[in-house]
Amino acid sequence: MRNQIASALSDFFFEYETPRQVLVRNRRVGVVCRLIQLGVLVYIIGWVFIYEKGYQSTDTAVSSVFTKMKGVGYTNVSGKETVWDVADYVFPSQGDPSFVVMTNYIITEGQEMGKCPELSGKHSCTSNNDCIGGSFKRTGNGQMTGVCVKTTNTCEVLGWCPVEDDRTIPNPPLLMSAENYTLFIKNSVTFPLFGVTRSNLVEGIDANYISKCLYHPTKAPLCPIFRLGDIVELSGFSFEKLAREGGAIGIVVDWTCNLDVHEKHCKPEYNFHGLYGNPGDPDSTSASIGYNFRYAKHYMENNVAKRTLLKVFGIRFDIIVQSLARQFDIIPTLTAIGSGVGIFGVATVVCDLVLLYLLPKREFYKNMKFKYTDTQTQDPDSEAGSTETEKGSGSKQACVRAL
Amino acid sequence: MRNQIASALSDFFFEYETPRQVLVRNRRVGVVCRLIQLGVLVYIIGWVFIYEKGYQSTDTAVSSVFTKMKGVGYTNVSGKETVWDVADYVFPSQGDPSFVVMTNYIITEGQEMGKCPELSGKHSCTSNNDCIGGSFKRTGNGQMTGVCVKTTNTCEVLGWCPVEDDRTIPNPPLLMSAENYTLFIKNSVTFPLFGVTRSNLVEGIDANYISKCLYHPTKAPLCPIFRLGDIVELSGFSFEKLAREGGAIGIVVDWTCNLDVHEKHCKPEYNFHGLYGNPGDPDSTSASIGYNFRYAKHYMENNVAKRTLLKVFGIRFDIIVQSLARQFDIIPTLTAIGSGVGIFGVATVVCDLVLLYLLPKREFYKNMKFKYTDTQTQDPDSEAGSTETEKGSGSKQACVRAL
Amino acid sequence: MRNQIASALSDFFFEYETPRQVLVRNRRVGVVCRLIQLGVLVYIIGWVFIYEKGYQSTDTAVSSVFTKMKGVGYTNVSGKETVWDVADYVFPSQGDPSFVVMTNYIITEGQEMGKCPELSGKHSCTSNNDCIGGSFKRTGNGQMTGVCVKTTNTCEVLGWCPVEDDRTIPNPPLLMSAENYTLFIKNSVTFPLFGVTRSNLVEGIDANYISKCLYHPTKAPLCPIFRLGDIVELSGFSFEKLAREGGAIGIVVDWTCNLDVHEKHCKPEYNFHGLYGNPGDPDSTSASIGYNFRYAKHYMENNVAKRTLLKVFGIRFDIIVQSLARQFDIIPTLTAIGSGVGIFGVATVVCDLVLLYLLPKREFYKNMKFKYTDTQTQDPDSEAGSTETEKGSGSKQACVRAL
Repeated sequence: MRNQIASALSDFFFEYETPRQVLVRNRRVGVVCRLIQLGVLVYIIGWVFIYEKGYQSTDTAVSSVFTKMKGVGYTNVSGKETVWDVADYVFPSQGDPSFVVMTNYIITEGQEMGKCPELSGKHSCTSNNDCIGGSFKRTGNGQMTGVCVKTTNTCEVLGWCPVEDDRTIPNPPLLMSAENYTLFIKNSVTFPLFGVTRSNLVEGIDANYISKCLYHPTKAPLCPIFRLGDIVELSGFSFEKLAREGGAIGIVVDWTCNLDVHEKHCKPEYNFHGLYGNPGDPDSTSASIGYNFRYAKHYMENNVAKRTLLKVFGIRFDIIVQSLARQFDIIPTLTAIGSGVGIFGVATVVCDLVLLYLLPKREFYKNMKFKYTDTQTQDPDSEAGSTETEKGSGSKQACVRAL
Repeated sequence: MRNQIASALSDFFFEYETPRQVLVRNRRVGVVCRLIQLGVLVYIIGWVFIYEKGYQSTDTAVSSVFTKMKGVGYTNVSGKETVWDVADYVFPSQGDPSFVVMTNYIITEGQEMGKCPELSGKHSCTSNNDCIGGSFKRTGNGQMTGVCVKTTNTCEVLGWCPVEDDRTIPNPPLLMSAENYTLFIKNSVTFPLFGVTRSNLVEGIDANYISKCLYHPTKAPLCPIFRLGDIVELSGFSFEKLAREGGAIGIVVDWTCNLDVHEKHCKPEYNFHGLYGNPGDPDSTSASIGYNFRYAKHYMENNVAKRTLLKVFGIRFDIIVQSLARQFDIIPTLTAIGSGVGIFGVATVVCDLVLLYLLPKREFYKNMKFKYTDTQTQDPDSEAGSTETEKGSGSKQACVRAL
Repeated sequence: MRNQIASALSDFFFEYETPRQVLVRNRRVGVVCRLIQLGVLVYIIGWVFIYEKGYQSTDTAVSSVFTKMKGVGYTNVSGKETVWDVADYVFPSQGDPSFVVMTNYIITEGQEMGKCPELSGKHSCTSNNDCIGGSFKRTGNGQMTGVCVKTTNTCEVLGWCPVEDDRTIPNPPLLMSAENYTLFIKNSVTFPLFGVTRSNLVEGIDANYISKCLYHPTKAPLCPIFRLGDIVELSGFSFEKLAREGGAIGIVVDWTCNLDVHEKHCKPEYNFHGLYGNPGDPDSTSASIGYNFRYAKHYMENNVAKRTLLKVFGIRFDIIVQSLARQFDIIPTLTAIGSGVGIFGVATVVCDLVLLYLLPKREFYKNMKFKYTDTQTQDPDSEAGSTETEKGSGSKQACVRAL
């Protein structure tokens, strides 16, 4: 018994199986098949490996962004000069990757809780019946008291009075000077799969360079300081138009890295595009243009709670980090090779179909390729020999069939 | 030499190799193998290709979201009527994808820096020894002065006085009217791999439609305006319960797109679910229910810095964008085909095992399939002929062995 | 006709094709090939399946995070005692995953709109010509009036006056007590592909445990309450140094889950690391150290709009959720098997090359493996027989060639 196993094992280890093949010497089939195989080979090596880098595995990054604005704005509304600094025009103030820079506003000062009519033109009424006391209108400014005010023909509401008058948006935008503000972006990305951490302050971008540089797509593509006017222009919008009614700009920091080369070549690229509609697109203004929000500063005056309401029109900047790192990995490599071999198998099947069904000499090739076992006509006792040899009518015929 | 290479090349190009095969005419093996092969084929075509769309590559989106609330709230606390508008009840105000709508609050007005005892019931003490001067308690309101106040039996602290009394949460919630607020979601997604950008204001969702519509799961599934009460209800919670103590709701904008059809079919789906515990789940209240935070409005009164402290209970909404786009790609297609061919190979191996080890006529098939080279017994000079022909004892035997 | 189709179908179903193979009994080739095949097998089973878990598909999570700080800070600046609670030192207040804890500040109280010179040392001038009226300097505090103030040798600006003096950063940091603040993290992750939702309040982390526990890397690795001092220390920084000038710490919540086991084993791991530069790295201070932002509290005093400006130095915490769940999936399993079979095919090709080109008896094996069709010399009328049998010069020769 042990001998048997040992012999089976030695058989297994000292033997090698390889498929028997027919070498068809036919120009048409040869050329067709070699071309198909060459195509598959070019596809696997050229496309999968070289072009699509199929020998690499990929990873996206976890990232952290913070931002800092610099610059001072100035407004002169009916002789009242005001200077706006970063604590006043950035929302929120703590340097989030998504923030709003105020470029225009409608200010309503000294609001206090009380009763006043809605703006004329909106929520108009003809009699008290149009103003159901205690109810709200979705776009109203307070709770209706049930009174229709004759002078404005609008419902009276309980709320912060006087109500905001946002019927006219200042034009040109009050804070056109926002164009010259600068934005500093600090971005760190980590590719957990490869254990690589990179910052957008790459090699060569030191404190000295940052203090002087300004981003330019070709001249200073790695400078992390951006002029707002440049950003808006690069995204294809007109700053004045965007500043007037507000809008949203995406700043894409693109980390597409091949980590098979030294990681110092892994550098960010900055792209800018409008979110929600492109500048040239006629549909872009079809729905919900502009960007604004309301913001209140509360204070006490003579023991009365008051607030200053700002309807802020601004440019919302979203720093979007997009990342894709690639590095050589044995598994995708071998998977690509393995499935490439499989596709070679498909090529063989296609060639066989040509050989066996399309060529004039297909019957001949069929006989070359296949050996038939006619077990139906076979002597059931015979196990060791083939049908033909059992019939044994002549060695020549046996060989013919055997092929 | 050149001729030799040319001849080798022409041999290579005009020749074609195809494996020789045995066609076994055996019903059992035939049926078993065809069924196995059919199974593999059904798996590859039916499952990998049709069901799992294995011919497509996938991509997730980078996205940008902003939100806008509308609606007015009203509270009447001990006769004091207050109206709350969007500048007062949304945190933060600038329309972030993650924000809080205040639904209940505990207000502590007129706090100023000073010394006062902690709330009775919390941080109780019996003597000054229980209140170590200059130290802090983790949940305390200030720095202990080292005095135990007799009237309240609590430590005296230096801090904003009077301390907040949050022992009773208003019930019903003060801002139940929040149920009728509406939320407008603007979401833009970009699939960088496919260069496709979509907005949730899809074709047909124009300014006119938005001004009138309200989201409904079946009647208006694409309307980007949501009533808060509906959102909470669709996520399975009771609005009043959530409004009282606060909670967190995830609004999932699901972009599952097949970009092989026109991109106009790439539309968002909105889903709503509670974060941190489900409504029906008994475990959900086991740890840290509710959602609240403290917020202060600072002001000066008679040259004294004061503040109004709000403990805000609210519903936190997280807009979560989930995206998966698919598009035909040659590489996953050929990888799937290639590995499918590989699995076909496995099927062949299985059938061979059946054929060679399980069938009664296995020896016969073994002889059909394999040709043995007994090189040990072979004349070492012979290179061109096979063992059998060298022995040449008879053509019949030669053929038998050769098969 | 119908019979023909039926017969073709029955032929197809009752037949089975299997490749014919040569069993080479050669120790060298056998051992080499078996070793190659064994290597491939070990790679596929050991590496792809067991080590890299290639039988599983993967998914990343959509997640939601909120945070809550607890603790009280105390400052004593020139005898003025102030207590800072969570409403004062956290920005923003509503519990975002990315927030700033103030640890140091420069306060400028009572600013109002007016004209005043810039700080001496910055923006210095020698004559009015250095101060172009109506223009701005990028790092200036307002709009230049065109006057060079003699006393400070700096340009006069219109802006919030007096201007902030941030030339000296308080040392030691004013709010060193921030070290003892605690941070509570609530995190929920959903793996959409597998339909699994998990919270960092896993089984066993109930309200009772939370009320007492404090995170420790080994003793309490699942406690979601963190002491700021511990976080900073675990990320390798000195708290005092970071607190003075500010910095950014990433708190990575790592969900690496094998969902083939019960989902209760899917637990978070917390890691801490500095963003933008590591503590020991000499380059880390090369560009833009520290983290600060400006924040203003506006108020009215005697009908004059004033503000208190805070330059906030703080530690920015980014809660970064990193997730990777794996679960058995039939498609990657079969793809791995399929491409593994393909690689087996490569092994066979390599062995064949050895067999056919390197062995001394290569010609013999070539004859064993290949059958040649010399169609050029063949009688064109013959379709059923092979070349050799047509020539029919002798059965021995026929068999030789046929092999």
